[in-house]
Amino acid sequence: MPTCEDGFFEYLSSIDCSDVEVYAIPEGYVVFPKVPLMRIEGPVAVVQLLETPFLSLVNYASLVTTNAARHRLVAGKSKNLLEFGLRRAQGPDGGISASRYSYMGGFDATSNVAAGRLFGIPIRGTHSHAFVSSFMGLDEITDKALTSSDGSNKCEDFVSLVQNWLTKIQDGSSLHGTFGETSQSELAAFTSYALAFPNSFLALVDTYDVMRSGVPNFCAVALALNDMGYKAVGIRLDSGDLAYLSVETRKFFHSVEKDFGIVGFGKMNITASNDLNEETIDALNKQGHEVDAFGIGTYLVTCYAQAALGCVFKLVEINKQPRIKLSEDVTKVSIPCKKKCYRLYGKEGYPLVDIMTGEDEPGPKIGERLLCRHPFNESKRAHVVPQHVEELLKCYWPGKSSKSREELPSLHEIRARCIQHLERMRPDHMRRLNPTPYKVSVSAKLYDFIHFLWLNEAPVGELQ
Amino acid sequence: MPTCEDGFFEYLSSIDCSDVEVYAIPEGYVVFPKVPLMRIEGPVAVVQLLETPFLSLVNYASLVTTNAARHRLVAGKSKNLLEFGLRRAQGPDGGISASRYSYMGGFDATSNVAAGRLFGIPIRGTHSHAFVSSFMGLDEITDKALTSSDGSNKCEDFVSLVQNWLTKIQDGSSLHGTFGETSQSELAAFTSYALAFPNSFLALVDTYDVMRSGVPNFCAVALALNDMGYKAVGIRLDSGDLAYLSVETRKFFHSVEKDFGIVGFGKMNITASNDLNEETIDALNKQGHEVDAFGIGTYLVTCYAQAALGCVFKLVEINKQPRIKLSEDVTKVSIPCKKKCYRLYGKEGYPLVDIMTGEDEPGPKIGERLLCRHPFNESKRAHVVPQHVEELLKCYWPGKSSKSREELPSLHEIRARCIQHLERMRPDHMRRLNPTPYKVSVSAKLYDFIHFLWLNEAPVGELQ
Repeated sequence: MPTCEDGFFEYLSSIDCSDVEVYAIPEGYVVFPKVPLMRIEGPVAVVQLLETPFLSLVNYASLVTTNAARHRLVAGKSKNLLEFGLRRAQGPDGGISASRYSYMGGFDATSNVAAGRLFGIPIRGTHSHAFVSSFMGLDEITDKALTSSDGSNKCEDFVSLVQNWLTKIQDGSSLHGTFGETSQSELAAFTSYALAFPNSFLALVDTYDVMRSGVPNFCAVALALNDMGYKAVGIRLDSGDLAYLSVETRKFFHSVEKDFGIVGFGKMNITASNDLNEETIDALNKQGHEVDAFGIGTYLVTCYAQAALGCVFKLVEINKQPRIKLSEDVTKVSIPCKKKCYRLYGKEGYPLVDIMTGEDEPGPKIGERLLCRHPFNESKRAHVVPQHVEELLKCYWPGKSSKSREELPSLHEIRARCIQHLERMRPDHMRRLNPTPYKVSVSAKLYDFIHFLWLNEAPVGELQ
Repeated sequence: MPTCEDGFFEYLSSIDCSDVEVYAIPEGYVVFPKVPLMRIEGPVAVVQLLETPFLSLVNYASLVTTNAARHRLVAGKSKNLLEFGLRRAQGPDGGISASRYSYMGGFDATSNVAAGRLFGIPIRGTHSHAFVSSFMGLDEITDKALTSSDGSNKCEDFVSLVQNWLTKIQDGSSLHGTFGETSQSELAAFTSYALAFPNSFLALVDTYDVMRSGVPNFCAVALALNDMGYKAVGIRLDSGDLAYLSVETRKFFHSVEKDFGIVGFGKMNITASNDLNEETIDALNKQGHEVDAFGIGTYLVTCYAQAALGCVFKLVEINKQPRIKLSEDVTKVSIPCKKKCYRLYGKEGYPLVDIMTGEDEPGPKIGERLLCRHPFNESKRAHVVPQHVEELLKCYWPGKSSKSREELPSLHEIRARCIQHLERMRPDHMRRLNPTPYKVSVSAKLYDFIHFLWLNEAPVGELQ
């Protein structure tokens, strides 16, 4: 049963966003609850149509960027963080968003090749377990020749070179007796992979047994590559006790370095994956480990710690009239009026407080004392003398107005900004346990106005 | 630094899936761990390229369909289930997948208009809180006329009709004294909405105060619509104590029915939303409530109970050689060989057990006793005499082979199949607390072969 007149569809086909203005906090900024991420102005019907698109585009993007940044904080700056989540995201497009915003939040690379192509994100990954188990033995390798890195010589039988090295490790080194016969299908897979990619040999070593097969096989191939002037990249652990296995693998690498005098072999990269998240990385840090890079998938893209970000889109003013959405839950009461938002910085360069004011109020001034009030709690207020003032909402879509439009930086620039802004926060706001809440405030004038409206709109209850 | 020869890219541009065959369990079937959802055959390099696309397409789809079905089981058949998750999904495409597969799993409708258009899913929703707060008062309504449902008469001032009804409820009914002055902006919004959509008036009643403003305002508009021959749909609660508010609202509706003799008014639809999930619906059921429809968003699309489904893609056979992926975690050991999979049904029509056999083994026969073995646990085995046998993997992409391709049913047909298959399960498999695990087995021949391979591939450990 049609419930619409044709005129409504004609109206829909006639509208565009030329009467709309969009203001937003630049991507990559650290943001706090209550401060609007975006301010949309325009005809109410058009702006209402933008509610779901904006929420759908902003909520998950902000959530996964935050989640990535949290993983970076716990992993530390020196580790490589690789996003491996495509197969556990909400379909292909969810996976693309996850890759893009994980990178923005401080990850180094992704295994999602399409995201690499679309956004220039570095690509990292290893071969699959299936690549290993697709080989039966070394006799399947038909093209055995490898030219040296500098092109000066050619090894006609790289397979034999690998086998010789494996024998040397097994019998002629301090590692003698630590392992027996290794998997020949795994050795064939590693050798074949090294022949194809001698400059980027990174082997997944847990298809059969990490310490008794994967790591020795890897070392044999890496030593053979070394003979030909190539430097292997390292190994990836994808199961088992990652702390223990990484430490044992590192010892193995150091033994090889010492036994065969291969300088730097001990520093070979160890990548770990397998259901990693903030908590498991924190636990690994406490146990002690030798992992250089973490591949994080499921818990990154599904945002294990909090699966959804609850940003909402609220009407705060119409025809110059302020509007407020009340709720019995005070955290759900919206802050009325078209507002300006500022970040105030202190002497030491840290952000001190964000403050929202009415559109027409004069902005905070450097060196001038300003009263910042909690939006709802009467007793919480503080005077601030800002050393630096930053207006947060910038114009990204001026519509028909004459305002100038902010440039859209590249993903790499946004990522750099995100890292910079996180580093600029006072450390006690950033600690994992009991962080100091960052203060979000309103001007004295806006405070008074909120409470005037609240009293006028809220029905008076009766206790019975 | 390029690590590929141009020939590789030429190879990539030359391949297609004409040499690939894809077998799958039909969409909408109930499936169990270990039984392959799909079997892919073809050249190893091409099939390997399909790993991530298939996992990305299958994992989330299966997860959210299952989550939807679980919500249906706890809500019961008689309730309407509405998917409201677009703004909390992983971007627009994640939201479209969520809508599609929630419907497949037994939801009735979605608020995602694009999914409605793409897949023919029924659309349901209400106006927004912003629609309510965008009104200041009744004088903003300029076009006040409403023609009756049968076209026989026209009310020139529907606004006054609404106001009269509100006064009657306030002063002339058993509800006198239960509420005072209601929000005029809310009343204006409801009236305006009813004028535009007199046949589908469903009001969001919690913008100001449900019992003191939203419900009385709704009833005034609904009674005015009733005068004009229209039947209001109902209300939506989006905050607060949903059990209590739904019960109080129902009492209010019944009082209106009784006071004014409006038959059926007490049965007005009550829709509830606000961070609902399986647990909260279960808790509402235990408390007692009067909700007819649940709108479920965040917890449905982010799959709160389990955020990701861990399906994997494993090589099980190459060049007629079986392959096995070992793991210290026995649940991660893959079942080798190209296999056939069957579902065996018992006398009462319930599925009894799924069984996997080697490709060349004769299939199970109706009435013939068959030994079904647990794939890894020697002591778990049972004889089964099936009354009905269903082969699970059907050919959906025959490639160049002469096999016939299964038809792809419509989304509506798949949804019907999903509901039917869930209803066909033995009730003890489906109960929320301590369900009986459904049995998944292998033939005696496949069991012996798995364990032969396992002993041959696994390195022998040494306890030290």
